[in-house]
Amino acid sequence: MSELSVNHLLGIKYLNEKDIQLIFETADQFKEVINRPIKKVPSLRDITIANLFFENSTRTKLSFELAEKRLSADVINFSASQSSVKKGETLIDTVNNILSMKVDMVVMRHPNPGAGVFLSKHVNASIVNAGDGAHEHPTQALLDSYSIREKLGDVAGKNVVIVGDILHSRVALSNIFALKLQGANVKVCGPKTLLPTYIESLGVGVETNLRKALEWCDVANMLRVQNERLDISYFPSTREYTQLFGVNKALLDSLSKEIVIMHPGPINRGVEITSDVADSKQSIILNQVENGVAIRMAVIYLLAAKIKQ
Amino acid sequence: MSELSVNHLLGIKYLNEKDIQLIFETADQFKEVINRPIKKVPSLRDITIANLFFENSTRTKLSFELAEKRLSADVINFSASQSSVKKGETLIDTVNNILSMKVDMVVMRHPNPGAGVFLSKHVNASIVNAGDGAHEHPTQALLDSYSIREKLGDVAGKNVVIVGDILHSRVALSNIFALKLQGANVKVCGPKTLLPTYIESLGVGVETNLRKALEWCDVANMLRVQNERLDISYFPSTREYTQLFGVNKALLDSLSKEIVIMHPGPINRGVEITSDVADSKQSIILNQVENGVAIRMAVIYLLAAKIKQ
Amino acid sequence: MSELSVNHLLGIKYLNEKDIQLIFETADQFKEVINRPIKKVPSLRDITIANLFFENSTRTKLSFELAEKRLSADVINFSASQSSVKKGETLIDTVNNILSMKVDMVVMRHPNPGAGVFLSKHVNASIVNAGDGAHEHPTQALLDSYSIREKLGDVAGKNVVIVGDILHSRVALSNIFALKLQGANVKVCGPKTLLPTYIESLGVGVETNLRKALEWCDVANMLRVQNERLDISYFPSTREYTQLFGVNKALLDSLSKEIVIMHPGPINRGVEITSDVADSKQSIILNQVENGVAIRMAVIYLLAAKIKQ
Repeated sequence: MSELSVNHLLGIKYLNEKDIQLIFETADQFKEVINRPIKKVPSLRDITIANLFFENSTRTKLSFELAEKRLSADVINFSASQSSVKKGETLIDTVNNILSMKVDMVVMRHPNPGAGVFLSKHVNASIVNAGDGAHEHPTQALLDSYSIREKLGDVAGKNVVIVGDILHSRVALSNIFALKLQGANVKVCGPKTLLPTYIESLGVGVETNLRKALEWCDVANMLRVQNERLDISYFPSTREYTQLFGVNKALLDSLSKEIVIMHPGPINRGVEITSDVADSKQSIILNQVENGVAIRMAVIYLLAAKIKQ
Repeated sequence: MSELSVNHLLGIKYLNEKDIQLIFETADQFKEVINRPIKKVPSLRDITIANLFFENSTRTKLSFELAEKRLSADVINFSASQSSVKKGETLIDTVNNILSMKVDMVVMRHPNPGAGVFLSKHVNASIVNAGDGAHEHPTQALLDSYSIREKLGDVAGKNVVIVGDILHSRVALSNIFALKLQGANVKVCGPKTLLPTYIESLGVGVETNLRKALEWCDVANMLRVQNERLDISYFPSTREYTQLFGVNKALLDSLSKEIVIMHPGPINRGVEITSDVADSKQSIILNQVENGVAIRMAVIYLLAAKIKQ
Repeated sequence: MSELSVNHLLGIKYLNEKDIQLIFETADQFKEVINRPIKKVPSLRDITIANLFFENSTRTKLSFELAEKRLSADVINFSASQSSVKKGETLIDTVNNILSMKVDMVVMRHPNPGAGVFLSKHVNASIVNAGDGAHEHPTQALLDSYSIREKLGDVAGKNVVIVGDILHSRVALSNIFALKLQGANVKVCGPKTLLPTYIESLGVGVETNLRKALEWCDVANMLRVQNERLDISYFPSTREYTQLFGVNKALLDSLSKEIVIMHPGPINRGVEITSDVADSKQSIILNQVENGVAIRMAVIYLLAAKIKQ
């Protein structure tokens, strides 16, 4: 039987192309499961998973929690606001304590880039990175590619533009790694101050003109504007951002072909995209959310198989 | 088999009298279940329910959660403080995202009147209103009437007075609709500034003298004083309120008959009612709480039956 | 069959020596369970437990929750920040409301000493004290003694020193009761201002010199420094505390024998103990955490047996 090349999901950059295909094929099966009347399988009755969220999250946490419950895993939730993290406990101590309670897998969101990698070297459990600062958000990138594959048949050879604040986005970085690994052509588009200087070294094109970017692409992945960054000097105002990098229906309809619109959510309606774009038939935003549960079921299932060896 | 006339429970005003009887008869059966040693039935193994609480709540949330678990539904909880609601996501987006994760039913408390109605028009799931601002709190009114029926045999023909801040109370409004629908006689009693001007158009009597109201009634439903409103100019001070509209044991004992005391909780002991009244044998306050679980099981069970069609 | 002498676990001071042995023998069996691939037993399918945490907690809450889930109990969680406790509801009302929803057992952490005892007199449910102010934390003391027994074969006759802020520590008080009951010799060590005046009346020795205390003992239980108390006048600065009462590896290695190091967590690394001490083979800190789940399963299982009678 096939298995992942890794024992943790710390980032897309640690995966190979076969890993991604294995995750997608496994997700195909789980997507059938969650569309049946009984959405549960008894696969992981013997696994306990701790969800450790040191940052606020709605959909990612719910998506992981549903994925775990539908695999029949035991689930415990821990979020920073109710926690002794406030008391100054170190991350390793927190996690080691939780693992001593016989937890097999840790799903962690943490504000520090590399927190998952660090943890995986110091604790004895399978780690799933649910977002580490501005670094990676691998399950998001997997569900994004899975949704492109579902919509367009394949990821290889497709032209994908990622629009927005690339510099601070873990979604962008994980998507770039995943798309390149699968043979897609990738460009980024956004305000110059929000494009990292090393971006071309990743094999990614740069296009600061949104219309040109959209004319080129098959898929536009519109990143969320982080409002909390808007008072920072190198960031444009919301109005400027929307004028230069927002997509509305008129712009979409003026293109020479029909492109696919994606967004990792939550949407700032009227900022990155207008409501008619978000709700149009070109948008696969809700498919992304649906696929998120199947992808997370697949990742957890495949990592659990490695624990049991 | 009987079924509800509605696909959502948005308010009592959308129900007919048969719906209420069906809910009560179903609750009778679930009340037996929760008094057995094994308090669970496997009825809703194939249903996933999201509890979305955009306002603080203790008992209502716990009551719904227990009802759902005792029906063996899968449950996910979402409360505003841990959520991306803070990030400015719209209500529809939040709920559509959750529904894309294959959630069948949404139980929602929201500060805006009409939030449930609005949602029911825009998303594809069964909605249960667990309180929408000062509008309705239908499961509370159902459990209140169910508790009167349990105590007095019937609701029809009974005299019920609702005492307190009628103007801001979703409990009052839902109770008025439910009691009238079942043929009870209803009066409200409270400070004039806290009685809505349209109250008589609802077929409800007004009595500003508490003793007279109590002499008239079979049942007094004592609303909670919202302390957070006490600095508002048209609201009396706590001391004034208690002197004019609070019930103590001496007052209760001085009446010509034994009336039933209800309270939706949480009680401000010594304000609306004194401790000896709350704990007296005339009080059915804890029965209300117990019946709340059975009523919520019944509502969820009956709405789920409509989903499956 | 053996049974506990009590219907609640309110404090070690209400237990006898046979109770402790019964809890330990039961925990031995559950420790086997949680080290099996399937960590669950169906023992308490008919029990609903409410975890009421009126104070922040990470590990204690998670440990109880895992213990309950591994016994297959139904679990509802309630923490003060999401609760109507803010609305001024009294403790008895809160708990009576929860019990009316057919809850069988209450696990409670509360800032007020004696909150559990008070509650046990006024409500009809089995109460487990998960920490009541500076009073008792009985499951912590049980898991501490259980861990000593596991490491050294027996508690009776062992020399145990408890180091730190004895005055404000529920862990210290519960440990003193538990250790004395089992025939251990107990000393406390800490700044004079943080040793209670009544300490010797408990049959406990006092030693303000840390080296002397360590030379005497078989086991040192290093209490956590509560940083939130550090601005209080009678408390030393962190630096002074660490110099006088902190344990580092050099001090440990300079002793004439190898002692066991315990800590209830969370550790302030570098304050009470250095990292190399915490992670040394003399430390049984993570064993304490692991044993916590088994001990809590045993306590809940034995109290549930008394409910069913």
